[in-house]
Amino acid sequence: MKFRAEIDIMPLKALLDPQGKAVTQSMKNIHLSEITNVRVGKHISLEIEAPDKKTAESKVDEACKKLLANQIMESYVFELSEL
Amino acid sequence: MKFRAEIDIMPLKALLDPQGKAVTQSMKNIHLSEITNVRVGKHISLEIEAPDKKTAESKVDEACKKLLANQIMESYVFELSEL
Repeated sequence: MKFRAEIDIMPLKALLDPQGKAVTQSMKNIHLSEITNVRVGKHISLEIEAPDKKTAESKVDEACKKLLANQIMESYVFELSEL
Repeated sequence: MKFRAEIDIMPLKALLDPQGKAVTQSMKNIHLSEITNVRVGKHISLEIEAPDKKTAESKVDEACKKLLANQIMESYVFELSEL
């Protein structure tokens, strides 16, 4: 079975997010000051071949932990859908 | 009313995504070769103050077009939820 995973990786809430702060500031400059609290992270999509959804989930989790996310600074969530 | 927008900005399908290609290759090196077609984009979350959902939608769309996404190379989707 083939699955698609959609992963969101965001800087931890407790940490400063200088890129997000810069974007929040830029919103004011383009007259969109009603936009606040911008946080910038990564979105990763991938495909995975696995015998069942549970295996796919654990493989994607492994990929996040080992390669995609830096758990000291980032948190991740993902959703799997069958292709 | 206050809304939260969750925005995904991804490289267009037609374009090469060198970062995604590099990650796909790295998956093989950590024995996760069942993972393919990795694409890497941005995830942006923000808060917006607006009188109604429709206004909030059009403001977030404006922010994406003017500042967050480069429409020549990227596509974006977003979801709004009331806070």
